Amino acid sequence: MPESWVNSGVDLHLDLRGAGGRRAALIAALRDAVRDGRLAPGTRLPPYRSLAADLGLARNTVADAYAELVAEGWLTAVQGSGTRVAERVEPLKTARIPKKVPKTAGPRHNLRQGQPDATSFPRTEWLAAARRALNVAPHDAFGPGDPRGRPELREALSGYLARARGVRTSPDRIVVCSGFAHALRLLFPAVLPGSLAVEAYGLAFHRSIFAAAKVRTIPLALDEHGARVEDLAVPTVLLTPAHQFPTGGPLHHDRRVAVVGHVRATGGLLIEDDYDGEFRYDRKPVGAVQGLDPEHVVYAGSVSKSLSPALRLGWLVLPERLVDAVLAVKGEREAWAGALDQLTLAEFIAAGAYDRHIRRMRQRYRRRRDLLVGALAEQAPHVVPTGIAAGLHAVLRLPPGTEKAALKAAAWQGLALDGLAAFRHPDSRMSTMDGLVVGYATPPEHAYAAALAALCRALPPA
Amino acid sequence: MPESWVNSGVDLHLDLRGAGGRRAALIAALRDAVRDGRLAPGTRLPPYRSLAADLGLARNTVADAYAELVAEGWLTAVQGSGTRVAERVEPLKTARIPKKVPKTAGPRHNLRQGQPDATSFPRTEWLAAARRALNVAPHDAFGPGDPRGRPELREALSGYLARARGVRTSPDRIVVCSGFAHALRLLFPAVLPGSLAVEAYGLAFHRSIFAAAKVRTIPLALDEHGARVEDLAVPTVLLTPAHQFPTGGPLHHDRRVAVVGHVRATGGLLIEDDYDGEFRYDRKPVGAVQGLDPEHVVYAGSVSKSLSPALRLGWLVLPERLVDAVLAVKGEREAWAGALDQLTLAEFIAAGAYDRHIRRMRQRYRRRRDLLVGALAEQAPHVVPTGIAAGLHAVLRLPPGTEKAALKAAAWQGLALDGLAAFRHPDSRMSTMDGLVVGYATPPEHAYAAALAALCRALPPA
Repeated sequence: MPESWVNSGVDLHLDLRGAGGRRAALIAALRDAVRDGRLAPGTRLPPYRSLAADLGLARNTVADAYAELVAEGWLTAVQGSGTRVAERVEPLKTARIPKKVPKTAGPRHNLRQGQPDATSFPRTEWLAAARRALNVAPHDAFGPGDPRGRPELREALSGYLARARGVRTSPDRIVVCSGFAHALRLLFPAVLPGSLAVEAYGLAFHRSIFAAAKVRTIPLALDEHGARVEDLAVPTVLLTPAHQFPTGGPLHHDRRVAVVGHVRATGGLLIEDDYDGEFRYDRKPVGAVQGLDPEHVVYAGSVSKSLSPALRLGWLVLPERLVDAVLAVKGEREAWAGALDQLTLAEFIAAGAYDRHIRRMRQRYRRRRDLLVGALAEQAPHVVPTGIAAGLHAVLRLPPGTEKAALKAAAWQGLALDGLAAFRHPDSRMSTMDGLVVGYATPPEHAYAAALAALCRALPPA
Repeated sequence: MPESWVNSGVDLHLDLRGAGGRRAALIAALRDAVRDGRLAPGTRLPPYRSLAADLGLARNTVADAYAELVAEGWLTAVQGSGTRVAERVEPLKTARIPKKVPKTAGPRHNLRQGQPDATSFPRTEWLAAARRALNVAPHDAFGPGDPRGRPELREALSGYLARARGVRTSPDRIVVCSGFAHALRLLFPAVLPGSLAVEAYGLAFHRSIFAAAKVRTIPLALDEHGARVEDLAVPTVLLTPAHQFPTGGPLHHDRRVAVVGHVRATGGLLIEDDYDGEFRYDRKPVGAVQGLDPEHVVYAGSVSKSLSPALRLGWLVLPERLVDAVLAVKGEREAWAGALDQLTLAEFIAAGAYDRHIRRMRQRYRRRRDLLVGALAEQAPHVVPTGIAAGLHAVLRLPPGTEKAALKAAAWQGLALDGLAAFRHPDSRMSTMDGLVVGYATPPEHAYAAALAALCRALPPA
């Protein structure tokens, strides 16, 4: 076997300027040399004393470093045969090239629904709340977390949701989670097995969560008053009552009452997805259905639209009988939601900064909504936007059979957006609706007018 | 039907001092009155004009409020019969009484393993890092998150893990998660189906995650050199090489090399749980096995022991071939780890604050470890602590058959701690080990001496 051989430390070009003392620096330098192939597998290292002399180190510093690297498996020491680089050390493959390299420059304007304006995150106020939270947090906030969530946040949410959304609850019925998708995973299938009625148009991502949980979803047709709850065939139902997603209308009050009657009569449950209930422009927010019967409604909300989806903070407001079951799914300790963000949000709400931020964003989004409506009235008056009283998106209904062509035209104009078909439940038998779902929160301020102009160019002629 | 009737606003005792304008205050006050029963179901409300006169409000303010509450389902309006409180509004049940009321004062001293010292969280440095992070974060940090985790954090971790743990990686092979339990859920069963070898002593919580994922675990016996990897019968194995949990020894270097050989030969994988690798007291840290063969080892770490389990931040360092599969499980967007904590940790590492904190904590834990060893040497010299070279806990081995009695004696002395039996894999055939697992990180400074004295009193006599 031909043998590599290192005569002295000089051959090694070891860089011993690393932090943490000379021994640590030597260990790191030897590891580096093995890693990058300067010391090939099988290479015999110089004896301690010669390397020590070459490097100006104490002998036992070098002996210690060798022993350490032997213990770690980088080197092997064979009695009478010195110390060698282990055979098994494999070089790291060259840096991974991402498989999905975008082939084009991508769309110029993002009009996809579902995202708030990322440029408006209230950095200063959030930092101030974080400072207060870190100042006053008890030590136990840094220990293992209560799976219900921090009591400070549940207290703040309980007051805020009562005030702003008409939710009736107490902190001990709130369970903090990482957002609505996490909420669904906590509920289905462990807490709520069996089939579930959902709106015929909704988020495909949510349907995929149900599919993964092996929960069958039964589509509920929509009309101008929202979901046809009188058609409900199963006790449990998921709705977006404040602002039907994505078509945009509120659930009619008769139907609010009817769905509560249904879940009460069947021993069922309404899951109320209040994803953007704070953003209503032309009248005061429609309060949560939960307030009508807290024992038959699970209310779910998050900061994903109101502040940022990057925070990963949401909440469930539960009927009393479900609290223990949801906590059992969550586990003995908080495994998901970070305590510092929870404490910061509690301070942020308590200081009124959350209300102020929502008011500010409501004005900004309303202005964007008005610009969209104005652009359509001027440039495409035959296209009437719907679902515009609330939320961060509108639906532009199109003549039957024209949605695909309109989406192609939109892509041609450099727009990223979805058609209503992307939201349709595959089992729905209601007549197809054609339309574009236009999210107006994300384009940067300077590009919004251009995005609207491009949108109008993509619409079918009158 | 006997009829409740409200003659005027004066009867209602409405508190209109709430925030958000008089209309909003009136709505909130009426909701409150319905909620707390002052306005019973069926009660007829005064006409707009009389309530407006009583409260000194404009008539259409009152009309609007009634309409809003009708839309929300709190009130019903019947043509010619005025506005009534809806029949369906149910009172909120009285506050939930927690089912698990502690029956005693609980243990006086918490010596359970697995928790760092919650009083030492570096609040000031963390806030400073958060400030820098919020100052420099690009806007997209507040949009939907990359499921890999923030690039700033993956970059910082890549350097830190190479330097401190001998991990060989690049940022594109790191996936951020919410901690080790989340890491296991990402890997099993979707990425790594089939059976898995685990150490015969380990965390029952982890075994429960495998059970839920329907992954069979095969216990690997332990001896004085760690897990007997020569007995491996399946390709995939989960180990705690730096500090066997809970028995406390490092995996012998021959076995480090052997397990890498095994996974390489079988096309298998080592999952390396490096839960407290930074805390080694009597010599430099044992580097990660991952460095020997990054393509056959999944390295998992977190801040749960080094900073706080409340942050819910961990990471997987993956072989190239597994990156896409893990990301597919994680989903299109980050659904778990909060972006601000990720950015803050990246700043915290980059500023050297993470290294400083770990050095400080290493000193503190070493001192606690020394006090434990000293107390035993003095008060119970026949009990030899093991696994004391590293970590936040020690194991006090006991004579066969005495563990249960010792645990009872410990409870009698007001101590919360676990015996080794709690960690034993139910299928293991290795001979039983008796011992107490003593976590020394959590008791407050002032109570530590008393906790040690109580511990010594609970130990069996020589």
